[in-house]
This record gives sequence, structure tokens and C-alpha cells, in this order.
Amino acid sequence: MRKICVVITARASYSRIKTTLVAIKKHPDLHLQLIVTGSALLEKYGSVVDQIEKDGFEITARLFNILEGNKPLISAKTSGLALLEMPTLFASLKPDLVVTIADRYETIATAVASAMMNIPLVHIQGGEITGNIDDKIRHAVTQLADFHFVASENAKARVLRMRDGGNNVYNTGCPSIDIAAEILKSASLNFNPFVTYGGVGPVFNYENRYLVVMQHPVTTEYNLAQKQITCTSKAIAELGIPTFWFWPNSDSGTEGIAKGLRIFREQNPDCPVHFFKNMESGHFLKLLKNASCLVGNSSVGIRECSFLGVPVVNIGSRQTGRERGNNVIDVNYDSNAIAHAIKIQINRGSYEPDFIYGKGNSGQKIAGLLAEIPITSNNADFYE
Amino acid sequence: MRKICVVITARASYSRIKTTLVAIKKHPDLHLQLIVTGSALLEKYGSVVDQIEKDGFEITARLFNILEGNKPLISAKTSGLALLEMPTLFASLKPDLVVTIADRYETIATAVASAMMNIPLVHIQGGEITGNIDDKIRHAVTQLADFHFVASENAKARVLRMRDGGNNVYNTGCPSIDIAAEILKSASLNFNPFVTYGGVGPVFNYENRYLVVMQHPVTTEYNLAQKQITCTSKAIAELGIPTFWFWPNSDSGTEGIAKGLRIFREQNPDCPVHFFKNMESGHFLKLLKNASCLVGNSSVGIRECSFLGVPVVNIGSRQTGRERGNNVIDVNYDSNAIAHAIKIQINRGSYEPDFIYGKGNSGQKIAGLLAEIPITSNNADFYE
Amino acid sequence: MRKICVVITARASYSRIKTTLVAIKKHPDLHLQLIVTGSALLEKYGSVVDQIEKDGFEITARLFNILEGNKPLISAKTSGLALLEMPTLFASLKPDLVVTIADRYETIATAVASAMMNIPLVHIQGGEITGNIDDKIRHAVTQLADFHFVASENAKARVLRMRDGGNNVYNTGCPSIDIAAEILKSASLNFNPFVTYGGVGPVFNYENRYLVVMQHPVTTEYNLAQKQITCTSKAIAELGIPTFWFWPNSDSGTEGIAKGLRIFREQNPDCPVHFFKNMESGHFLKLLKNASCLVGNSSVGIRECSFLGVPVVNIGSRQTGRERGNNVIDVNYDSNAIAHAIKIQINRGSYEPDFIYGKGNSGQKIAGLLAEIPITSNNADFYE
Amino acid sequence: MRKICVVITARASYSRIKTTLVAIKKHPDLHLQLIVTGSALLEKYGSVVDQIEKDGFEITARLFNILEGNKPLISAKTSGLALLEMPTLFASLKPDLVVTIADRYETIATAVASAMMNIPLVHIQGGEITGNIDDKIRHAVTQLADFHFVASENAKARVLRMRDGGNNVYNTGCPSIDIAAEILKSASLNFNPFVTYGGVGPVFNYENRYLVVMQHPVTTEYNLAQKQITCTSKAIAELGIPTFWFWPNSDSGTEGIAKGLRIFREQNPDCPVHFFKNMESGHFLKLLKNASCLVGNSSVGIRECSFLGVPVVNIGSRQTGRERGNNVIDVNYDSNAIAHAIKIQINRGSYEPDFIYGKGNSGQKIAGLLAEIPITSNNADFYE
Repeated sequence: MRKICVVITARASYSRIKTTLVAIKKHPDLHLQLIVTGSALLEKYGSVVDQIEKDGFEITARLFNILEGNKPLISAKTSGLALLEMPTLFASLKPDLVVTIADRYETIATAVASAMMNIPLVHIQGGEITGNIDDKIRHAVTQLADFHFVASENAKARVLRMRDGGNNVYNTGCPSIDIAAEILKSASLNFNPFVTYGGVGPVFNYENRYLVVMQHPVTTEYNLAQKQITCTSKAIAELGIPTFWFWPNSDSGTEGIAKGLRIFREQNPDCPVHFFKNMESGHFLKLLKNASCLVGNSSVGIRECSFLGVPVVNIGSRQTGRERGNNVIDVNYDSNAIAHAIKIQINRGSYEPDFIYGKGNSGQKIAGLLAEIPITSNNADFYE
Repeated sequence: MRKICVVITARASYSRIKTTLVAIKKHPDLHLQLIVTGSALLEKYGSVVDQIEKDGFEITARLFNILEGNKPLISAKTSGLALLEMPTLFASLKPDLVVTIADRYETIATAVASAMMNIPLVHIQGGEITGNIDDKIRHAVTQLADFHFVASENAKARVLRMRDGGNNVYNTGCPSIDIAAEILKSASLNFNPFVTYGGVGPVFNYENRYLVVMQHPVTTEYNLAQKQITCTSKAIAELGIPTFWFWPNSDSGTEGIAKGLRIFREQNPDCPVHFFKNMESGHFLKLLKNASCLVGNSSVGIRECSFLGVPVVNIGSRQTGRERGNNVIDVNYDSNAIAHAIKIQINRGSYEPDFIYGKGNSGQKIAGLLAEIPITSNNADFYE
Repeated sequence: MRKICVVITARASYSRIKTTLVAIKKHPDLHLQLIVTGSALLEKYGSVVDQIEKDGFEITARLFNILEGNKPLISAKTSGLALLEMPTLFASLKPDLVVTIADRYETIATAVASAMMNIPLVHIQGGEITGNIDDKIRHAVTQLADFHFVASENAKARVLRMRDGGNNVYNTGCPSIDIAAEILKSASLNFNPFVTYGGVGPVFNYENRYLVVMQHPVTTEYNLAQKQITCTSKAIAELGIPTFWFWPNSDSGTEGIAKGLRIFREQNPDCPVHFFKNMESGHFLKLLKNASCLVGNSSVGIRECSFLGVPVVNIGSRQTGRERGNNVIDVNYDSNAIAHAIKIQINRGSYEPDFIYGKGNSGQKIAGLLAEIPITSNNADFYE
Repeated sequence: MRKICVVITARASYSRIKTTLVAIKKHPDLHLQLIVTGSALLEKYGSVVDQIEKDGFEITARLFNILEGNKPLISAKTSGLALLEMPTLFASLKPDLVVTIADRYETIATAVASAMMNIPLVHIQGGEITGNIDDKIRHAVTQLADFHFVASENAKARVLRMRDGGNNVYNTGCPSIDIAAEILKSASLNFNPFVTYGGVGPVFNYENRYLVVMQHPVTTEYNLAQKQITCTSKAIAELGIPTFWFWPNSDSGTEGIAKGLRIFREQNPDCPVHFFKNMESGHFLKLLKNASCLVGNSSVGIRECSFLGVPVVNIGSRQTGRERGNNVIDVNYDSNAIAHAIKIQINRGSYEPDFIYGKGNSGQKIAGLLAEIPITSNNADFYE
């Protein structure tokens, strides 16, 4: 029975890996170990850890590592803290494989710890390009990992180039599409966001149409975060359409966004915008599926929304370089351009599904590979 | 005036970068900041930091981070400690460029800290292949770095492949060749190793011929370190030729080597083998230039010795994948094979110089580039 | 010239030490080194570090160490982080004396680092009793320190008991009284809090009378923080008197207070309560001096207000055990009792000054002692 | 069932607590959690952790924290590392009581972590005086602890003074005496130290008489460690009596001792002195019981040897202030004085037992108290 240690660092990485966790848990030859760290532990970012437990997974270990502050040195120290403590956990849990996801700054700690401890490392969603600091992290993890489960053919080709070939690169599709596929089976909005999630801001009628906004700070432009969010909030204020707005991830620049949003709220107390910290991912996808448009810079717009056919207005550089479907209109930080693009998308309505990121069976595929990939055991004693 | 922050982590990285440091110090447009960390701070590994000061460089900061223990988790935690504290130093020193060298496990901390803090990072000696865990570190640093000063054409081509092209890859040659080139001007052995460096073990006559041994633990085979060193020590004991033996770097497996050497000494108290912790690099190169053969797995055998034409017996997998000259005979961990290869090399005598790793002007080239490469200053405020 | 390294961890410790810093800076035989750490670095807690620079002091080093989260393990890890990095700073700064203040959880890191590095340590404001976890920290620092500058005769007697006698205990009074004494010379409210400090909440007329509220979480009751603040906010809401309310320190329980205050604001949008993060201490003392009553659990109510004669309603256990003047009415977490006590104090008016915590010359006294206390130099080489 | 978490940091603390661990394990109302950290994990210091497992205890967690280097800043950082990671372990193990022993520098990390996390803390062997930096640590732990299990009446009185009274101070005697009491039942030397423990140095006849030497560095005089050990080694060399010599603990100064002993060995290759890293404590006590004299500065000379009646020559300041029996002659760092005192003790022969540190039932007493002391559970949720 292989011990598979999955490290969850943030809301996004949990959403992306969830169907894989289910498949690992069900697989007769796999034993799941779950380390939760980063913003996934913090109430401020929606207590993802509680959601994970509610979803039926047992938390093997919790590693608090996020430092307070709104500066790049904070991210670096936060990774250092993870790298300092993760080895203690690995040495205690003795996993056969470690799984790390995507490109958050904490993933580098997981990857370095595994590589130095000679624990075979699986990287999920390498080989993509987004055009900012995450690229460095993602590609560095690609170099540290032993196995690569990528989400598209482009990504596979890039990983192979970066590694001068090799056999351990598999296109599994993106597990986030699995959840989207599940949702499509019954996509009606069968819950009331205000009742179920509380949040703050005016309560409004969202039956006819509504927007969803999700805009994160861009780590290389963290000092512009407040300015950038203000472009978006101006556009939303001008349109006056009912809007569900999601709080950003913890990262350099988050405080700038928080400040911008506080000002927006004080200046537009009656604008029909309601803020949420978090939402169970099934609910979130239904909210998207029924939205007139998703606005912001979330990768959800590129991935899930291409599969779901949701119109997207993608702002700025955060998703630059990612393969995308027809459902996306890219705009700059310019409130007029944003408002204009939203209007176009609302008029356009929903798109046909696109399968560039998989067909909805990634979790199964990944669990199968985790059980079968050959682990060189010449390091059998690496925990001694 | 650009502030250039060079991070020295070990004896080898100092030797390799020394002529570059001299050139930076002399350059009118550059200001040198020197962070010393890792084994370079420890008496046990020859107090490299004292040598650096003796060479006329001022130490800007000292960062103690090596944990005790002989296990992979120790290397990982040691890197974590560096990554935790390095950002505090960077935020205080505010360098315009950070320079990291080669592939020691601490280099990843420097690279991650720089990348996360958006400080432009120069990596020296990327793009090489050695076939062990150092490859992962080296290639990960390549992904995190902004500028790549590589040591050979092969290395340049590999970095370009790994990064999908780009403009910031320069073949500067290896600065370690600079020192070798300087040595060649007057290569006679004008010092007495016993008198100048003390060390332990019998004192012997080395005028006619002698060997130099330098064998480090292989990190992916750290648990075999004692066994591996014993193959070498058996061969040396059998040959009975005067031998200068250098203590290994701090790494997973070092204690195994130390144990093996203690046993060797107790069993062969009269064998003409003298042990040193460290040697000023000019002296070391003269010792090599006049040696009948270098034995072990040091990269010095591949680089400097190819330029100097010194016969080398390279043992095991540590240098696998590195480009090498005709001066190298590769053997396995087998005391007979080692002894046999040494005899061949002694009979063969010295080789013609080979310029695959440069012609001796790398330090100058690198300093020139550090002053000229374009730094994108859209992150001008990254320390605020 | 003695190098005096003062470590500032929070707004309160800065206020308390400020006149001492001025006196050190002016003293011909002393050289000031200032390490700023903890919440004093964070914008969220009023960027005390910027205030320190504005006051004319140079920051020698900044040490970010506060982790995010609202749990006791976070405070412990935060101290660990400080203890991990502080030695690097001390080894670089080579102070002759380290000065630590009072009882915040970060002070233990400063004290342990100094003790282990054999650097003579001065503890300011030991020997007091407050009846919660701070007592443990304060008394532990007393055991680790070499010199004790206490604020009252009671405190001196207690330190002597705890240390079985000794010669290094001095009653210097509390330097916070120095600022209060300075203020008394011209105590009129010569600034407009709304204009100078912004803050959030309604703007009101405060000419006739106003309250000041400052209530911190109690670390041993951190999970009750929200409930406790709600008792106070209910009382304030009921009274409807103009109120300046100050944001609490960073500590276990802060988030509970923040939540309680957010709810208060949403439920009482028109109540004349204005919130501030921070205020320059001179302004703060003038605001107190002219207040009808200070409400909460700040030590300012016990110390400065006794000297200034300001009526105080002290709530709960946070100041239990501290010597106090006649100006204080103690009440429990009970909104009726709080409201009642505030009314009594408002009717009573201001009190006569009380000198239990000094007469206003502590900074001078302390600087003088720092220059004169005998430092045993048998550890002269402790930084080598 | 109470969860009792005992933290073992070094060989000495394990020896001292062993009978208590046995009693906890047997107690029906107690569940033992064992965290091993510090030098107890390192092969270099005799792999105490392996001994603990061999003795039948399960290791709950291992925390590697010792940094390399021979400087005070290393001890401080080592404690910082423990304080950074210990909270993660405590939060995972959720002990009802934490037990920390004596005064090693790592104990402060355990104590601070427990205090900040509001976990009731038991301190064993507080209230003693040894006249060096350990005093600061020990007394600071006394201030941080909730329960005090002291080893003598003097210690009890001191703890009560330091804490202004209180109810939680119990004289349990020292559990190290329990093992000594057990040994007395059959004290003959029924093992061959050379055969059982290997070690290095000449093998000799020890039937007639022999010395045992155990000398640790004094942390406040760490830079004198080599000089101090040389006084002792000179005396031993001069006497030429068969001697079992034990390697010191990891601490500031250990490398100085190691260097001194290496030189001694090289200069006196034939002197009948054999070196051991470690010895199972039962064996060690038998070796002591049958020794002509114990030489050095170990607390074993003060405690166990007073009960066993073994003559002791105690050197220097390390045990200053500890209560002692008649069996101890104190001398300074002076090779003549040391040799002279050893001769006196050899002629004198063994002493009558003295019960100042207990009668041999401490482990039982302590386990009983751990099951019964009242734990205030107002912090029931401190792990939430």
C-alpha cells in the first residue's frame, strides 16, 4: 500500500485536487496523507481546512507558516518556514510519494524538501506559462519533481523540453475539470448565496443576471494591487449589475486589494455588490455556470469556464501565456475597457464547451498513476 | 553603482568565484556585498570565512544555518533555515543583483529568496549535468534565475533548451580556470604543506611523486559513503605512495566518510597519508599541478585539471554527465580498479591543456557583465 | 562608547521607552542600536516603525516575525522565529548591552538570545504583577536578565525576592511617566484627531466631553475576546457619549476583538464612536488628559493616568495585581457595571497626580545607568 | 487518561527521567508521549534515542534542532529552532501536561512553548543553583512552569521564594537516585566496558582500581574549554592510572574539549585512558560505584555519587552552588591540585550514602503526582 502525501497550501490548490483526493481515498492500493499549510489554515481566507474536513478527509498534519506583512520578503520567509518544518513531517509520515500542486509560493518548499530527502515527488499542473513570478516557481518545481502530471498537450511538450526528454510526463488533464463535469449534470442554482454563506454588503435579486468577480494580486506587481482593483471596482460600480465578489488569496499585494475594496464599499454603500470569503467549490461552479460573466484574473476563468462555456473578462497579466478557449476576452487595467468587455460578454451569452484542460476524469487517472508509476527504491532507507 | 550581493556557501563555491570577487571589487561601477553561510563558516570545514577575510574581502553578513546530523532531512532543514533568514539580509542590504554559484543545496535558498523578492538573480555554472541530486538543485536554480553565466557551450545550449530560449544566457567560462591560469605562470611547489597547513598523519617525503585525494559523499548515495571511501582508502593503503588527502564538504554522508577515514587511520597508522581540512586555493592548485594523479570525485578533476593537464582518476557517479578532457580515467567503487587506474596515470604523466571550461578570463568577463546587463527596474520598490 | 541595543516589539513598548531612547541618543558615552520587530513593523498595527523614524531615530535592523492566525501556537512560533533570527543580528551588531522592555511575548526571545550569547541584558519594568500569562514571561525575563530597571518600590522588592537578593536592581520609575510629565506643561488639545489621524467612523463634536476606549485581548482568555469587547461596546452604545476608540495590540484574541468591533459598527452606524489604529504618544496623552474617562484594560490607565489624574474604568483581569492610584475604578465584564462606573467617573472629574510610577525623569536615569553599570568583560570575546 | 508529554533533550535528561518514564508507562491513568530532540538524536553524542527505544519506549516525535558551530549564537539559534517547531508538535499531540527536565538550553524552548500555548507545564529539578548560565535557564523555566517537582528541601525553599509562595511545589527527590538505588542491589561490575561499548584508546586491566572522567564545557567559559580539559588530561597523564573517559555533552565549548582530547591522545598514545561516547545508565552507575574516584564536573558526582558513596574530585565552577555530600573534594583548574585530590580520594576509599537527593522512589512519586495534580481546564480549548 503506497503512502501518498498530498500537500494543500491554499483554497485554489484544494479545489483543483479534490477529485483526486476522493480517488486516492477510494483506491485499494493507496493510503492518503494530507498536510494542510499556508492560507488554507487561516480563518481570514475562509478556513479551507474546515471545508476539507467537512468533505470527509482526515487532516494528517497542520503546518502554520504564513507571516504577516505585505512585502515580498514575507513570502520568502513564509516559504522558508515551510521548508524548515516540512522535513520533520515527512520524516515522521514516511510517504512513498509526495504530491504538490501548481505554483503557489509554498509549493517550492514541498518540492525542495522532497528532493533533498530523496522522496519521489509528483508535480501536478507543471509546464504552463502565466507570465509572472509563478512561472519561476512552477518551472523550478518541474526541475525538482520526478513525475509530472500535466493538464494539456502544450504543457506536456514544454515539460519535456525543459527536462531534455524523459519518460515521466503524463497528460492527465486538470482535476478541476472533474468537478465542473460533475456540476454540469445538474447546474441549476439550488442554494441562496446570502443565506448559505453570509458575507457582507447589500442583498439583491440575482435571478435575471449577475456577475462574479475574483481578482487576485499579481505578485510581480504587488505594489499596484490597490490601483488595479480600483479599475475593476469602478467598472462594476458604473455597470450597477448585481455582483458576487470573492475575496483574494493571501499573497504579496492582498492588503492593497483589501484596502481598495474597503474604499469601494465606503464610497458605494448601495451598489449591489456582495462580498464572500469562500464558497464550497460545487456551489461556486454552479454560481459561475449561471453567471452572465466572470470578471477578474482567476485561473478558473481559463480552465473551468472554458469547459463550462461561461463568458469571461480576464484582466491584466496574471493569466498571460495560459492556453485559453474562445470564452475569454482579455482586457487591460482600464475601467472603461473592463465595463465594455463585460457588456459584450453579457450580450453574447454562454459558449460551447472546450476540452483543452481535460474531459472530467483526471482524478481517476491520477490516482491510477500514483498506484502504478515505478518508484526507484534504492533510497528505501531515506528516512532512517 | 550597482550593489552585487554574492552568497558563498562552501569552500568549493569560494574557490570557483574568487577571481570574480577580485574583479567586482576592482570594477568602478560595482559594489561588492558578501554573505557567507553554510559550511564556509565552520571551523570543522576549514573556516573558509577566515580565508576570505585573509584574501582581503570584507564579510557583509554571516548566516549560520548548518544543522547537525547525517540525514537527508538535515539538508532540507538547513536550506529552510537559510531561506528563512536570507530575506532579512536581502531586505537590509538591498542588492541590485544577487549572485549564486553552482548547485550546493544552500544555493536553492538564495535563489528562492531572490525570486520571491523580485531581486534580479545571476546564476553561475548552470546548465551542467552531474547525474545526481545536485542536478535537480542546479536546474531549479536555472528556472529561478534571471541571468545565466555558464561555463561551456554545452551548458549554454542546455540552459537555452530548459528556458525555451531567451537572451540572458552567457558563456563566460568557469572562473575557477582563472586561478589555474594564474598558477601556470609559476607552478613550482614553493611551500611545505606540513609546515603551512599542519593537518594530521605521518610526515613524508613528497619530492619524487605524490597523490592527492579528494572524495566527497554522493548525496543520493549518502548511506554508502563509508563503504565508498573505504574502497579508495584500501587502494591508497595498497599503493603506499605519499598522499595528501583532503577532508570532504559538509553534506549528507560526511559522517560516513569521516568514520571510514578514522578507521583507515587506526588500521594504517604508518601509511604515508596526511590529512588536511583546507588549503588556500593557489597552494592547492600548485599541489595538483605537481601531483602524479588526483584521485576521488571532486569537480576540480574535471575542470581545473583539464586545463592544467593533471592526470585524474575519477571514482563513481558524482561527476557523471560533466564534460571532461582526456586527462580523466573513470572507475567504479572497486579498490583494485582504483589502484590500477592510478598506476596507469602515474606512468602516463601530465597531459596537454584543454580549454573546454574557459581560458582564464572568466572573472573579468563576469564582472563586466554584472555592470552592464539590463536590470528591469519596474520592481524598483521591491524592498519598501 | 557603549553600544546599547534596544529591541522594540510593539507600540506600547515604544511609547514606554521613547524618552529613554532620546536620552541614550544624547548621551556622550552611549551609541544607540535599534532593532524593530513584532507588530511594530506592521501597517495593520499602525506602522510604529514609521513613527520611530519620524521621531528621528535610525532603525538598525527590522525583523519580521509575526505569523498569521488567532491561536496560541502562533504566539509561540512567532517567538521562536524571533529567537532564531535575533542571534544573527546580535552577532552582527555586537552590542555591549541589550535592553528589553516589559512582558510582550517577543521579549522572551530577546532575553533568551542575550542570555545564551552571554550579552549583558537590561530588563525594564520587571517585578510587576498583572495576573495573566504576561507574568510568566515578565518573571522569566527577570531570571534571564543581568540588570533590572524597575518602575516602583513594590516591583523592586519583588525582583529582589525572586533573585535571592543581588545588587543590580534599580528603581528608575517608569519612562512612560516622562512623556506624561512633558505633556502636563501644555496639556490643551491642540490638534484635531479626525484631521490628523483619519480613522473610521462618524465625526463628532468632542469639545464638551468625550471618552477614550482601549481594550486589548487577555491572552489567557483569548477565546473570550469577542464576548469581552461586546460588553464594553454595549455600554458605550448605551451611553452615546462621543468616544475615541483605539485598535488593540496584536495578540491571541485580537481577531475576536476585531470581529466584535465590526459587528458593533454595523449595528450602531450612527453612534458617535471613531476608531483609530494609532496615535503619536504626545497626542495620545493630551487626548487622555482632556478625557472625561479612559475605559478598557490598558496599562496606560494604571500608569500615565495616575500621574495625569485621569479617571479610569478598568475592565476585567488584565491589570490585576498592578499597583494603582485612586483614579481607577475596577469593574467586571458587565455592560451595566461598565456604564455605571463611567458615569461615576464623569461626575467625579479629574484626580490629583500620584507618583507611584515615577516623577518624569526615568529616561535620564536609565541612560545614566546604562553608561555606568559595571559590565563584567570576562565574556569580551563572546561574539568571536 | 491524562496525556503526559515528556521532552528529552540530552543524555543527561534521559538518565534522570528514566524511572519516571517507566512509572508513567505503568500508571493506569497516564498515557506517555515522548518527544526526543537536541543532542539525544545525534550519533555523535551516542544516539540516546536508540537507547530509549531499546529500553522499550516508543518515540512519539523527533525534532532535529542542533546547529553546527562552536559559538554562543549557535545555542540561541538551536533553542529558536526548537521553539519554532515544538508548537506544531504540541498542537498535534494535545498533551494535558508537558514535562521538562532541569536546565539544558533546549528546555527553555519547551517551557516557552507550553506557557504561550497555555499547556500546564511541569518542571523537574528546578530551584537548584550551579553558578553559571544554566541558572538563568533553570530559574526562567521555574517562572514559566505551573508545577515544580524539586529534588531537595533547599530547592523547594528557593522555588517558593522565587514564586512568592504558592501550592504547586513538591519535593519528589531526584529520579536519578532511583536508578542508583536499583544498582546498589547488585553493584558488581558484570560487564566488560571495552567489549560492550567499544570506544577508542588502549585496552587495560581495570580490576584493581580505575578512575572515571566526565568533564563538560562550562557555557559561560566556553572559550576556555580546551585549556580546562588540558589541566585534567595532564593530571590523568601524570597519574597513569587506568581511566574510563566519557565524551562531553553538546554545548558551547564542546569542540574545544574535543580538540584538547585529540591532542592528549596524540601526545599520550600509550596512557591507559579509554574513551566512550555513551553508556547505558545502569552500566555507567556500576562503573561509578566500583571506581576509585570520579573526576570532572558532572552533576552525577554531586547527586548519584553522594547516594552511592563514590569519591569525587569536582573541578571548577560548573557545580558551584549545588548541595553536596562529604564525598566531594572541590578543586580548581590546576593539574597539580587535581592529581593531588585524586590521590587523597583513592586513599580514602568509598563513603557512607547520603540522602539529600532522595531515597530512590522519585519516579513513582512523580507519576503519582502527574495523575493527581489539579489541571485548571479553563483553557480546555487551547488547541482549537
